Amino acid sequence: MLDFFRQVREDLEVVEHEIKAVVQSRDPLLTQTSMHLLNAGGKRLRPAFALLAGKLYNYRLEKLLPLAVALELIHMASLVHDDVVDDSMTRRGTPTVKANWGNKISMHTGDYLFAKSLVLISQYENPVIARVLAETSVKMCEGEIHQISTAYSADQSWRDYFYRIERKTALLIAASCQLGAVAAGAPEKDHKRLRRFGHQLGVAFQITDDVLDMVADQTLLGKPIGGDLRQGILTMPVIYSMEKSPRRQRLRELVEIQDKTDDQVKEAIEIIKEAGGIEFSFNVARKYIEKAKMNLTFLPDRPVKQTFYEIADFIGIRRF
Amino acid sequence: MLDFFRQVREDLEVVEHEIKAVVQSRDPLLTQTSMHLLNAGGKRLRPAFALLAGKLYNYRLEKLLPLAVALELIHMASLVHDDVVDDSMTRRGTPTVKANWGNKISMHTGDYLFAKSLVLISQYENPVIARVLAETSVKMCEGEIHQISTAYSADQSWRDYFYRIERKTALLIAASCQLGAVAAGAPEKDHKRLRRFGHQLGVAFQITDDVLDMVADQTLLGKPIGGDLRQGILTMPVIYSMEKSPRRQRLRELVEIQDKTDDQVKEAIEIIKEAGGIEFSFNVARKYIEKAKMNLTFLPDRPVKQTFYEIADFIGIRRF
Repeated sequence: MLDFFRQVREDLEVVEHEIKAVVQSRDPLLTQTSMHLLNAGGKRLRPAFALLAGKLYNYRLEKLLPLAVALELIHMASLVHDDVVDDSMTRRGTPTVKANWGNKISMHTGDYLFAKSLVLISQYENPVIARVLAETSVKMCEGEIHQISTAYSADQSWRDYFYRIERKTALLIAASCQLGAVAAGAPEKDHKRLRRFGHQLGVAFQITDDVLDMVADQTLLGKPIGGDLRQGILTMPVIYSMEKSPRRQRLRELVEIQDKTDDQVKEAIEIIKEAGGIEFSFNVARKYIEKAKMNLTFLPDRPVKQTFYEIADFIGIRRF
Repeated sequence: MLDFFRQVREDLEVVEHEIKAVVQSRDPLLTQTSMHLLNAGGKRLRPAFALLAGKLYNYRLEKLLPLAVALELIHMASLVHDDVVDDSMTRRGTPTVKANWGNKISMHTGDYLFAKSLVLISQYENPVIARVLAETSVKMCEGEIHQISTAYSADQSWRDYFYRIERKTALLIAASCQLGAVAAGAPEKDHKRLRRFGHQLGVAFQITDDVLDMVADQTLLGKPIGGDLRQGILTMPVIYSMEKSPRRQRLRELVEIQDKTDDQVKEAIEIIKEAGGIEFSFNVARKYIEKAKMNLTFLPDRPVKQTFYEIADFIGIRRF
């Protein structure tokens, strides 16, 4: 996706540098775990969205920098806490903090990164930034708890699914787009549009991600197929197929098995494909993309606006 | 300690009510875990300090309430995360959230309470409040990590000990005293004095706590004696005795044993008592109390000032 970030590429390097500077602690272990996490990579999507949104208004990197760094730290904090609870030993092909240092250190590393983000946010005078990020953080926790308490349960509705993906993904992307604009002095009407844009884009992004978890080329995906099913996380294609498939009863059974064999995962995915769960979900994602783009219409006509369209279209068609 | 809070007793009931209102979530499980934690009790020391500090200035409960609630939520969040890492199954005689719901839920409950505190804090226009609490949170994490990475190591200095207890206890009490004053419109000189008061009081409080962990009546303490030694946490009496005791070599050996028997804990405590580690530590605590009280001299002469002196004296002499 880096090509979409051409207008902010150099500034993203400054962000990267700043993230690394910010996580330095008097405690060598904390510095080490934080740097490990940072060096494991990541697309820095959220800082990029914030900078791009800023480019629509009065763009000054020094005003956007603390926010961009904070957004990535919040995201990383949530990842490292997910790894604690998910018992993940690798992420993006690298051993997780948890794999190297254990649960305790991972949890405190997440707390630390999150607290560091607050120090950055507290620099802003505009109260919208702190408020939006605080509310987003509350909802992110709600999403995680919901995911745990509904795991392996076939009794779930669309509402449960949307509740989770909003909290897991969409709200922080929405905040990134909105607050980048806020920090660049956008009028309220505009930053609320960018928020809606980010929200709908985030929903589309997560739906696509969830579908790819079932159908993507395993090598491109970098993780075994059907990961969500194995962890008991029910996504759109599953929920759709539990309603529509003639083999819905078998699918419900499979979903609820806690230690699925590879064959059981394969069987569930077959039922889902047959029921049209994949196509259906891609279509819903595309509709969200179209909704997202509509929010862009009344934003200032600067070159970066075109980039937002391109990103939206890319998310609608990405297949890896 | 409730008697010291007579000037704010009714308002503390409002705080209590508000804490319970604030943690209500759309997610029934999160509400349940948070309420469990709340109902397990606690002295609400930090809200009390904030309100008392406010009483020295332009006291208005509605201005202090979000802060008071946030301070307790931050404290509770740190407790629930400590239980995750400490493998504690009870706290104050009640099963921990972790004992009832497991590590994953505990971790997210802590994250949730902390995020909720940010929503409250984001209401304040004065940037000092958010900044101080953010910096305090960063340091609290550093303290936890330090405790983990130095556990069972006899190679520790006074500096290590003070580094930890500042972060574990003193800084949040310092913030409570300072920010209560800030929220009530205190001049900077004054709220910095209250901060120092709280800091030194917090240090004294934690030193006393650490000594009592070795010598208090077990029934009054509500937990087995020598808990810190068992967990490999080295406190002032131990560090002192590892320097001064003729049996320092044996003490070092005992300290480093990871699964101490009751007899080994008893033996370590005997060595410490013999070396004068208990008396020495109580004396240091008393000196901090005296230092703390000196900060009160130039504060406004309102009735509540007397209460601060009383609290300080009580912490200096408490033996349970």
